[in-house]
Parts: sequence; C-alpha cells; structure tokens
Amino acid sequence: MIILGLDPGLGTTGWGLIFADGNRLSHIANGQIRTETAAALPERLVALDAALTDLILEHRPTGAAVEEVFVNANPQSTLKLGQARGVVLLNAARSGMQVGEYAARLVKKSVVGVGNASKDQVHAMVARLLPGAKISGPDAADALAVAITHAHMQASAKALGRVRF
Amino acid sequence: MIILGLDPGLGTTGWGLIFADGNRLSHIANGQIRTETAAALPERLVALDAALTDLILEHRPTGAAVEEVFVNANPQSTLKLGQARGVVLLNAARSGMQVGEYAARLVKKSVVGVGNASKDQVHAMVARLLPGAKISGPDAADALAVAITHAHMQASAKALGRVRF
Repeated sequence: MIILGLDPGLGTTGWGLIFADGNRLSHIANGQIRTETAAALPERLVALDAALTDLILEHRPTGAAVEEVFVNANPQSTLKLGQARGVVLLNAARSGMQVGEYAARLVKKSVVGVGNASKDQVHAMVARLLPGAKISGPDAADALAVAITHAHMQASAKALGRVRF
Repeated sequence: MIILGLDPGLGTTGWGLIFADGNRLSHIANGQIRTETAAALPERLVALDAALTDLILEHRPTGAAVEEVFVNANPQSTLKLGQARGVVLLNAARSGMQVGEYAARLVKKSVVGVGNASKDQVHAMVARLLPGAKISGPDAADALAVAITHAHMQASAKALGRVRF
C-alpha cells in the first residue's frame, strides 16, 4: 500500500509518501507545501487544498496518516494550525482514504524506539529506514515518520488478524 | 446580493442567508449544521463540508462572511474550532466567493450599535432587522449577525465608492 503521511501547518505542510509491503518500506516522494504568508487566510487554505489534491491525484495513496496535534501555548498558533489541519484531514478523507491519527509519542516510539526521542533522532532514523530518500526539510521528515508509523500499525494489525486505525 | 453568514464549530456550525440591496435587508434562510460527536474527526469534517456544499449549491450566495475568532482559553477547544473553521473558510472560498472576516466587536457594533452588546441583544436585534425570520438557534443568530455586518460594510464601501472586505 501507498501511505501518505502529513504534517499540517498553515505556513508549511510536510508530506511524505512511502510504499509499504508488511514491514518492508520504501520511499516514494516527500516535500513541503508552502502558502503565501501575504495572502488572505481563505486563499491560503484553498492553495493548500489544491496542492494536496494534486498530490493525491498524482500518487493515488491508499491510506493517510496525521500526527495528533501538539497544542501550542499560543492560542493564535493553535487556531492557525487547527485551520490548516482541518483542511488536510478533510482533503484526505474526501479522497476516500481512511486517515490514521497517531500521538507524537507513538510516532517517536515507532520510528526510533523511544517515546521521548528528539527531532534530530527522528529525522536520522527516517533517513535510515528509507534509504535514498532526499528529505526536503523537518516537516517532510515528520510526515514520513507518521507514514512509517501507520505502516507499522497496519502490519501489526494484520499480524493480529484485524485492522486498526 | 445574497450573503452567507457562517458561525463555524465542529459540533454545530450556524449559517444564515440574507438578501441585501444596499442597506435594505431581508431574510432568506438560516439553520445549524450538526456533526455526529461519535464519528471520527475526518468524517465529521467531510460531513460539514458536504452540508456547506449543498447549501451553497441550493442558494448560490454571492458573498460570505465569518466572525473573526474568539480564542478559547482551552487549547483543545481552540484546535477543534480551528479545524472546523478551516473547512468552512475553504468551502466558501473554493466556491469562488470572497470571504469577509469581521471582529466580534464590529459585528456587535454593526448589529446593535455598541461593541459590547450581549448575545441576547444581538439575537433580538437580528430578529428585528430580519422580520419574519424564524431563527434556528444561537449559532444561526450569530451567523445572521455576521451576514448583516457584511451587508452594512459593503453598503458603506459602495457609498464611499470602493469595495472593502
């Protein structure tokens, strides 16, 4: 299956596509969608939505995964993130994919082996698990990490004879 | 012009449609879109998006308006609101409408005449400005209030010979 991992943000949304066959993973593509900070909010959301639609039409992922959110101390940042996250979840679900949501701790544990791994450790481990991947930036690395987590969860669920999200 | 006012929320999104000819206003319809609290977040956002699309296809509004957000003290509530608000702004903008955003104080001042009006005063004034309107609930009243504000702003802008949002 082709898994689309997403790390939503109004300014930058990271994305990463991997191919997963059980626990065997390979990298397909990754990148970061940026929206114009000078544009009005509705237009930024439309641009984000359009870029995601293009991505999904091009790669036809079969599943999507998003990290459960870190609620920022700054409520305005949380609101901005929420607005972008709403668009990202809507777009993925509207494309007919089931969307897995995973806590940050679970993503770190799944990729690095410990729930309190640093951002650098996650990045390094993603690069190791997906040899040959040129990672566009920190948001793309986070998106690939959540895609890897989704693949692991699916493989475990299959091993247990059931499907979980 | 037909103005769609929106009061976004994940559980309940209020909407109100008015017809505006300069400062002359009349009520078209209003209501509240509810999403299943038991459903997963992506599905709730898809349901909200689909209900808005139906509404816009049925009534063909020419403009939309949303209140600028009151940031809740509870960051989880802010995030939920943000996710719903992102979907609402995206849907309206994707339909080709320009979306006006107005601060709560401006909405109150525009509808009641004072920026610190109570919710009840706003509700009562909306009912007076739109005679015959049967208001579905507090979120629909807020949606009609922001639609009225948008109409006033457009009328003032026109009187001044320019268009503002």
